Amino acid sequence: MKKIVIFGVGLIGGSFALALKKAGTYHIVGVGRSLESLQEAKSLGVIDAYVDTFSDALQPQGLSSQNIPAKAGFSCVKPNIHEALEGADLVLIAAPVAQTASILQSIRPHLSKNTIITDAGSTKTDVLACAKEILGEQFNQFVGGHPIAGAEKSGVTAATANLYVGKNVVLTPALEANRDAVARVADFWRTCGATISEISAETHDSIFAAVSHLPHLLAFALVDDIASRPNAQQLFSFAASGFRDFTRIAGSHPEMWRDISLANKTALLTELDAYLNELSQLKKLLTNEDGAGLQALFERASAARNAWAKK
Amino acid sequence: MKKIVIFGVGLIGGSFALALKKAGTYHIVGVGRSLESLQEAKSLGVIDAYVDTFSDALQPQGLSSQNIPAKAGFSCVKPNIHEALEGADLVLIAAPVAQTASILQSIRPHLSKNTIITDAGSTKTDVLACAKEILGEQFNQFVGGHPIAGAEKSGVTAATANLYVGKNVVLTPALEANRDAVARVADFWRTCGATISEISAETHDSIFAAVSHLPHLLAFALVDDIASRPNAQQLFSFAASGFRDFTRIAGSHPEMWRDISLANKTALLTELDAYLNELSQLKKLLTNEDGAGLQALFERASAARNAWAKK
Repeated sequence: MKKIVIFGVGLIGGSFALALKKAGTYHIVGVGRSLESLQEAKSLGVIDAYVDTFSDALQPQGLSSQNIPAKAGFSCVKPNIHEALEGADLVLIAAPVAQTASILQSIRPHLSKNTIITDAGSTKTDVLACAKEILGEQFNQFVGGHPIAGAEKSGVTAATANLYVGKNVVLTPALEANRDAVARVADFWRTCGATISEISAETHDSIFAAVSHLPHLLAFALVDDIASRPNAQQLFSFAASGFRDFTRIAGSHPEMWRDISLANKTALLTELDAYLNELSQLKKLLTNEDGAGLQALFERASAARNAWAKK
Repeated sequence: MKKIVIFGVGLIGGSFALALKKAGTYHIVGVGRSLESLQEAKSLGVIDAYVDTFSDALQPQGLSSQNIPAKAGFSCVKPNIHEALEGADLVLIAAPVAQTASILQSIRPHLSKNTIITDAGSTKTDVLACAKEILGEQFNQFVGGHPIAGAEKSGVTAATANLYVGKNVVLTPALEANRDAVARVADFWRTCGATISEISAETHDSIFAAVSHLPHLLAFALVDDIASRPNAQQLFSFAASGFRDFTRIAGSHPEMWRDISLANKTALLTELDAYLNELSQLKKLLTNEDGAGLQALFERASAARNAWAKK
């Protein structure tokens, strides 16, 4: 029976667990900051066991599991993370991306050569740099990953065994990565029903700045702009289905998107500048009442959007 | 039996016809530019009769129906529009907003005192100004309207009797409007299942610049920006559900949105400037790596979006 350790049992980690359990027999250990959430994950059958020492591991002075104090209600006093990682085939890091370093530091002292580590973060260059620094010579056991699955809902109660069916999982292994580890991570995701792409971390971050991170920023900005007006309630009362779909991603998790924005700052600023340039061209067409120019722009966009949607 | 004349039998006009026919007995005459589309509307049971002289009426020199030449395959040589309007209770103009003047000019010579005119245009200040100029002392028979119903699909084949059920129809009558005419237009829309709001044309245009027209421009701009890149196909291949929803309105009708943009230019430029200001604040937060500022903006937006979605 394969043993999987999941750091962060929310929508992404929880759905990974449920998909594997649907496909076969796995022993799944959840690690997280919130005891309540881990208990809920266990009662929902998402995980088989849990370790809630992650919150301690997050404190710089508490990196060694030997120092973790006993917790009320736990018979097992120490090396929780050590026990969790013992004999693990795979570690999935599915916590907010800013916690990656702390998690890797908590894993490092207990990591055997047979355990593969992957993650589900929305940015990859920063994650790989962090993993390389912390894991050192064991960096070849790390395979960066990014499941492209909607995440505007969050928490383990939103997890579902079918989340990844037909979805794309992008793997971004470093050149140093063990190719067998890459193949094994790909196999786990295929077991969840996903298809696999492999690109470099830099290409990943540049692509997702354009097709995901920038649209999120634009949607957040529009809603914030409207919400800050004195007549916001009147404006919202006339908003309809176009507004609903355009702003759906503005309902996403603020902390997660703060982390993604900061982690992918350079590529995101490049995209934001390109978009500001596009808007300034559009403003010029409108100011000059250039109907032909506006229609040409709208036609290019409409044709491209509809061609994409057909695929 | 009430007689309704619909200029432009596409999604909006066709759905209005189907909704009325579902609720009662109406004689519905379609008027349009395309004989083929009118024949299709008739064969689908959306309209009972049609007049295809609208394309002639659009030519400045052909405004009087007396001058309209015979058409191949038509036994009735002239006053088609006169016949269509004879005894009509209501005229609905549901054609692209830039055609409103031509349509009103073609109606004007045949308009009895008992016929009410309304429209379904997405902008209202320009439509009311145009109606006032063309209809003169009969302007009190005109009631501006805007059904808030999704329109990224178009054409009579997309029309459905349920399009307006539970949707909002905004009426923007001028101060001169006959209050009985306003009440009767409201009743027609209620028969289609819609609820009614009444605001001024100026308020309407300012509200919809913010919650509809600007989001359309932003979505068109994003897709055009991406589609123009050398690696557009790679970018599109990684776009997922967030991108899909954000850009859905970029698949909208280019000509219609050119007309809306030009018609509501002033309010739209005001909104675009406010948004550019918001984006420049966001860019500053990102450039300065101001995590707290980014998170605060995302939290305001996320809370407002989710509160709106709950309603």
